[in-house]
Amino acid sequence: MNKVLSNKQNDRDPFELVQESLQYLPQPNSEHINEATTRNRELTKPLGSLGRLEDLAIWYAGWQGARKRDIDSILIAIFAGNHGVARSGVSAFPIEVTHQMVGNFQQGGAAINQLASLLPSTLKVVPIDLDVPTRDFTEEEAMSREEFSEAFYLGFEAIDERHDLVIPGEMGIGNTTSAAAIATALFGGDAKDWAGKGTGIDDHQLGLKIEVINKGLKRHGERLDSPLEVLRCMGGRELVALAGAIFSARLKSIPVILDGYICTSVAAVLFKIDQELLAHVVAGHQSAEQAHAQLLKEMNLRPLLNLDMRLGEASGAGVAAHILRAAVRCHGGMATFSEAMVANKS
Amino acid sequence: MNKVLSNKQNDRDPFELVQESLQYLPQPNSEHINEATTRNRELTKPLGSLGRLEDLAIWYAGWQGARKRDIDSILIAIFAGNHGVARSGVSAFPIEVTHQMVGNFQQGGAAINQLASLLPSTLKVVPIDLDVPTRDFTEEEAMSREEFSEAFYLGFEAIDERHDLVIPGEMGIGNTTSAAAIATALFGGDAKDWAGKGTGIDDHQLGLKIEVINKGLKRHGERLDSPLEVLRCMGGRELVALAGAIFSARLKSIPVILDGYICTSVAAVLFKIDQELLAHVVAGHQSAEQAHAQLLKEMNLRPLLNLDMRLGEASGAGVAAHILRAAVRCHGGMATFSEAMVANKS
Repeated sequence: MNKVLSNKQNDRDPFELVQESLQYLPQPNSEHINEATTRNRELTKPLGSLGRLEDLAIWYAGWQGARKRDIDSILIAIFAGNHGVARSGVSAFPIEVTHQMVGNFQQGGAAINQLASLLPSTLKVVPIDLDVPTRDFTEEEAMSREEFSEAFYLGFEAIDERHDLVIPGEMGIGNTTSAAAIATALFGGDAKDWAGKGTGIDDHQLGLKIEVINKGLKRHGERLDSPLEVLRCMGGRELVALAGAIFSARLKSIPVILDGYICTSVAAVLFKIDQELLAHVVAGHQSAEQAHAQLLKEMNLRPLLNLDMRLGEASGAGVAAHILRAAVRCHGGMATFSEAMVANKS
Repeated sequence: MNKVLSNKQNDRDPFELVQESLQYLPQPNSEHINEATTRNRELTKPLGSLGRLEDLAIWYAGWQGARKRDIDSILIAIFAGNHGVARSGVSAFPIEVTHQMVGNFQQGGAAINQLASLLPSTLKVVPIDLDVPTRDFTEEEAMSREEFSEAFYLGFEAIDERHDLVIPGEMGIGNTTSAAAIATALFGGDAKDWAGKGTGIDDHQLGLKIEVINKGLKRHGERLDSPLEVLRCMGGRELVALAGAIFSARLKSIPVILDGYICTSVAAVLFKIDQELLAHVVAGHQSAEQAHAQLLKEMNLRPLLNLDMRLGEASGAGVAAHILRAAVRCHGGMATFSEAMVANKS
């Protein structure tokens, strides 16, 4: 147990906590990585022939041990929040849909419920103050420091050390606008290069979305030099909770599969603070949301899947989890050349 | 039951059977496709947001019905055979490894055993006359018509109508040489464009492999105008069995996920006879074997995965099966907008 976990943290300022954590981030266990690397060479297959599955298994061993044969306790955590900017016509769906979809998650009717049922997983749904949308970021800061802190610790505390894989997801009408604003603030370039069609808006709405982002960037100015301030000023509660969850998993050495554009934009906030904060992360898929490919590239992440998905709610990561499970199961369960009495490469 | 299935077929010449079948191939059920297409529009997600999962679910409904909520009876069938050309130094592994790996499959130690254990599947291992490698195709026809017929029906009869998905795989030291020879014969171009490093050969061995392919092409000449003759003259027993299995699944309307380069080269034989023979097929992954991307392109197949895998033994398809399962589970299990009382696009 490292010191950040030994105390109740939620009276700490998350800005300070994240910054201080950089000095005591747990590292992947190099003995376990070596052990897994050696074992991988001995398994009954040409070396390298399982491709990325081999890399994934070795990477996973660094976090969760070389002897683990299965990923069998997955946490899927869906955070939901409402956005002031959603009232500006930036989404194809009305803001009420966030609340309705939370009901759908709770009743088992959404895509992620079906995907979760195919995995040894627990699905946790965390609606955050849906009746109080964040403030319109074109006019003021989306959240106060207190609101930010509350949402951050909701995400932070959702992660439990019993879990061997975390899949964070989000639901929030209007949140691709926040994601695009965050990406523009963090990586520069034009808002139009980072804004896409989200749940399916038309060109007029896309124009509004770009305008909203540009207004936000102008409004918050130099404050946006700080990645966490970007998240506070233009994010939403569910995005802040995602940041808390990804960060919490990092401190607990639990691998995380990122979902699509929105999750990746939140991860990018941590990436911009220190790339080390994402050492436990793999990109689940490349979204059909047009800017996602570029965002992944900026972060040196290679997605596991590219299936034109763009739903959010952890759906892409929920499919990608099977790849990681397959990697770990092969690594843990296969016979070695000597065990199986198979001749190795001549 | 259509007429080809109503009789014991294995006294028929497979060449004739395949040709005649073109007149009575079962088609995907258009009512089920329409029903699934309508349902897909009503599910609680923006239309199109599950990307390829939506297309897969509708395609699958055409073969297996629109009400099916699960793929839960998968057949993974691994055919193994030995190749005369394997003695020419075209592989990184000795020919004995085919037999040894069959033992490994039977003992549960191979990659496909682990992958099969993550699916509701039966794994069938079919070694075919391993003690009698096919003849060296640089010198004579790899198989006689009788040998071809025997292997074909082994594959054909391995497929059972109870199954709701078929994943055929192969094992055979030297069989990427056959696959490359088949691809060159079917699609033209230079042998060097179709030959890759298989299980991991060096440049010298790759040179030998290309030479072997060119000798084979020259030896069999105009006979190679017939796709099934290509398979008989330069294939192997496990490849012929794969062709029988893929064809059998087509007649039984059971979807098939293709594995890598070798499986795809066999499917290409059917493709060249008539594209309709592959209407029930989806490409599981793009192999690291360099020519696979081109082969898929020639056949208008878009792979589900691209994970640099190149093991064979159905491993890529065995991972891809989770994507198809996810598609069917989402389609079958999600609530509609009206059921969940969620507002649709405004």
